[in-house]
Amino acid sequence: MDGRRDVGILAMDIYFPPTCVLQEALESHDGASKGKYTIGLGQDCMAFCSEVEDVISMSLTVVTSLLKQYKIDPKLIGRLEVGSETVIDKSKSIKTWLMQIFEECGNTDIEGVDSSNACYGGTAALLNCVNWVESNSWDGRYGLVVCTDSAVYAEGPARPTGGAAAIAMLIGPNAPISFERRYKASHMAHVYDFYKPNLASEYPVVDGKLSQTCYLMALDSCYRQFCNKYEKLAGEQFSVSDADYFVFHSPYNKLVQKSFARLYYNDFMRNCSYVDNEAKEKLQPFSNLTVEESYQSRDLEKASQQVAKHLYDIKVGPSTLLPKQIGNMYTASLYAALASVVYDKHGSLDGQRIVMFSYGSGLTSTMFSLKLNNGQHPFSLSNIASALNVTEKLQSRHMTLPDKFVETLKLMEHRYGAKEFETSKDTSSLPAGTFYLTRVDSMYRRFYDKKADEEIATGKARYSNGYANGHHH
Amino acid sequence: MDGRRDVGILAMDIYFPPTCVLQEALESHDGASKGKYTIGLGQDCMAFCSEVEDVISMSLTVVTSLLKQYKIDPKLIGRLEVGSETVIDKSKSIKTWLMQIFEECGNTDIEGVDSSNACYGGTAALLNCVNWVESNSWDGRYGLVVCTDSAVYAEGPARPTGGAAAIAMLIGPNAPISFERRYKASHMAHVYDFYKPNLASEYPVVDGKLSQTCYLMALDSCYRQFCNKYEKLAGEQFSVSDADYFVFHSPYNKLVQKSFARLYYNDFMRNCSYVDNEAKEKLQPFSNLTVEESYQSRDLEKASQQVAKHLYDIKVGPSTLLPKQIGNMYTASLYAALASVVYDKHGSLDGQRIVMFSYGSGLTSTMFSLKLNNGQHPFSLSNIASALNVTEKLQSRHMTLPDKFVETLKLMEHRYGAKEFETSKDTSSLPAGTFYLTRVDSMYRRFYDKKADEEIATGKARYSNGYANGHHH
Repeated sequence: MDGRRDVGILAMDIYFPPTCVLQEALESHDGASKGKYTIGLGQDCMAFCSEVEDVISMSLTVVTSLLKQYKIDPKLIGRLEVGSETVIDKSKSIKTWLMQIFEECGNTDIEGVDSSNACYGGTAALLNCVNWVESNSWDGRYGLVVCTDSAVYAEGPARPTGGAAAIAMLIGPNAPISFERRYKASHMAHVYDFYKPNLASEYPVVDGKLSQTCYLMALDSCYRQFCNKYEKLAGEQFSVSDADYFVFHSPYNKLVQKSFARLYYNDFMRNCSYVDNEAKEKLQPFSNLTVEESYQSRDLEKASQQVAKHLYDIKVGPSTLLPKQIGNMYTASLYAALASVVYDKHGSLDGQRIVMFSYGSGLTSTMFSLKLNNGQHPFSLSNIASALNVTEKLQSRHMTLPDKFVETLKLMEHRYGAKEFETSKDTSSLPAGTFYLTRVDSMYRRFYDKKADEEIATGKARYSNGYANGHHH
Repeated sequence: MDGRRDVGILAMDIYFPPTCVLQEALESHDGASKGKYTIGLGQDCMAFCSEVEDVISMSLTVVTSLLKQYKIDPKLIGRLEVGSETVIDKSKSIKTWLMQIFEECGNTDIEGVDSSNACYGGTAALLNCVNWVESNSWDGRYGLVVCTDSAVYAEGPARPTGGAAAIAMLIGPNAPISFERRYKASHMAHVYDFYKPNLASEYPVVDGKLSQTCYLMALDSCYRQFCNKYEKLAGEQFSVSDADYFVFHSPYNKLVQKSFARLYYNDFMRNCSYVDNEAKEKLQPFSNLTVEESYQSRDLEKASQQVAKHLYDIKVGPSTLLPKQIGNMYTASLYAALASVVYDKHGSLDGQRIVMFSYGSGLTSTMFSLKLNNGQHPFSLSNIASALNVTEKLQSRHMTLPDKFVETLKLMEHRYGAKEFETSKDTSSLPAGTFYLTRVDSMYRRFYDKKADEEIATGKARYSNGYANGHHH
């Protein structure tokens, strides 16, 4: 196909709100037993949007930042699509807000809209974008995929599983992170594990226990089909020893630990050669469980996590940095986990394979495989790592007290779906170059401004003019 | 690309609710001047969902019908995606409800989710699906695209521009309706012409005047770029004389009349050779208008419609049947218009070209080109026409009095986003094989049943079992 090889991710950038709360502090604030969130959920910290940020502002910030960091002319973007499950408008896509960046330079010929199904929308957008580059309608320009979400929950056990972030990924051929196209399997089904039927509320309806089982069932189904397809095409058995990293959608880290152990248990049941005698012995008592029983057995969970621990630390550990520090970012979670691996391991990824598992409640799920190479500047793994700048971004955050977090969520309950209000416009905690919400008018139109870039002395922002409300004069 | 030629639409089916109201009756009910809806909007009749139907039930109905009519094994579907702007759940995609049909036969490996941006989501889904077939990840199976919407408006001038329908399209290579891939241009921008920021309400916020101007501006921009690309690739000028049919997204017929006249005016300004001296004379007075003035001039509107009339009747008229009879079907509108052409002209379409214009407020728009051939049974134009069965479907509808229509919309205002209610389960007006909503439980879970197929004596429906609520036991 005229030299279109190695289609995939050329560049990445991530933005997450600087406002966050420590899970340990939240535990004592909520009167939860010590370790319930930090060990029980496996989470360290949770980012959240203050009243001046939302999924639109975060995506404006991350797209602007990606274009700037990699010096991409906005005219070279031929497709832009967004994955999100945070609904600010039920008809107008987030993509149309992002068009402001491209209209400025006269580029309005940009395909793509928003893809939606819970946390899976970003994967749908990414797969769509890769297909576009490989299709006859590709015109040689870059694709751009944005995942943006704010995960908030009503007071109760799910609240500490929130988070917020936006990720942008540039798509094209000759990518350092490319797709092994035929190694891909999906599992899609109709379930009510997590959904948002209460339209007036930002909070979902969640059946936590059911959602976890659905996640593991989908994982089993995808893995089974993934292995089948791999074995058909590659002519040899697939097991977890055939990938260098496994990156899972991460609602909370504990489920990621369970998921990798579940793959190990699958490999044990499939009699994979790398499973040693000691592990076999420990898992033997569970070899006769029915599938249904295997999802419920706490003993199996413990035993499989124990025997998989040494591999988990190597193959999964590096992907858990951002999800543990930020929390569930819904569509962005899986790609924040991928970004964590690239950031941490960029020097040693050349030639390696990463297997990804994307899950969205409702449910939709896909397992797919990425092949890494060092790439060429600016689209090199080392440049992606430096653009991601994870350590500095994490270190410059502002730890908020649980009271303030709860107060913010209370305020946002009134702001959700509301009109005619101004925000505090307080940008003191925001990094330079961050977009923020200033007001929503009587027609629900949203106005954003941009905190000046570091190098700009005067504070005149770009999207504060009359055009920003999208009203043609 | 290994023989993947002529990728496009292999088969189509349409479902629209049998409940509808005559625009003439609505005019007098509303106390509107005679002809305001019938001539002013150009509409004859408007379909609407009664309390037992919604976008989920309509899409279950149309997918089941398509698979049955074209004898497609559900296992042969490898991708299923939905375009819709009617939000019943903000997280769980409509696609997941449709998975019930495929889970029954063990096929859960089906990519794709929902695409959303106002009336454009169906086009996004269709373009994605065609790209998939042309990409390296295609596995030889069919794609399936579903457009499903219910357009309802608050009391006022926009209310008669409602409608409801679901369309299903089967996608694959060697299609009778295939894409001319490089003849495609998009215009995307940030505007607030029509949007749904009031999350608790099913009704949109609409600026009718702005939306019409945005539509025409987007049309101009797409047409300009479409012509540029065509001229670059084909080496000759493009004008409306180069396509046999033009199919427009149709919020109401009057805008379609204006749109075709606008293309004609574009051709006049571009000095296209087919524009005769008489037309030139009539349009000459408007040749010095600024672009902005040209959108506002009623005289230009009249003059261009008049000179374009003879071509409108031939090139646009055949596409207007279903949109005039059903109303705005949002994502399904453009494809109902295409179905109208196929239904009416299937015997003479071989070798012809249809140019499509898709518009979704907010805004996203694309102009693209289709090439027709007779095809091979069951994927032939004549078989598609017979499966569509438009005349019989239209004739077997139940005209409802305006009072009953208004009463239904009032009831639905309370039902929207509600839980814990049962519907009337009155299926007397529904065709055999139609899915319908029976109840929504205290957890907002929706239950559907199916009216027995004609050939089935016993009335046991398929989706009334415990599994239908998507709750795994």
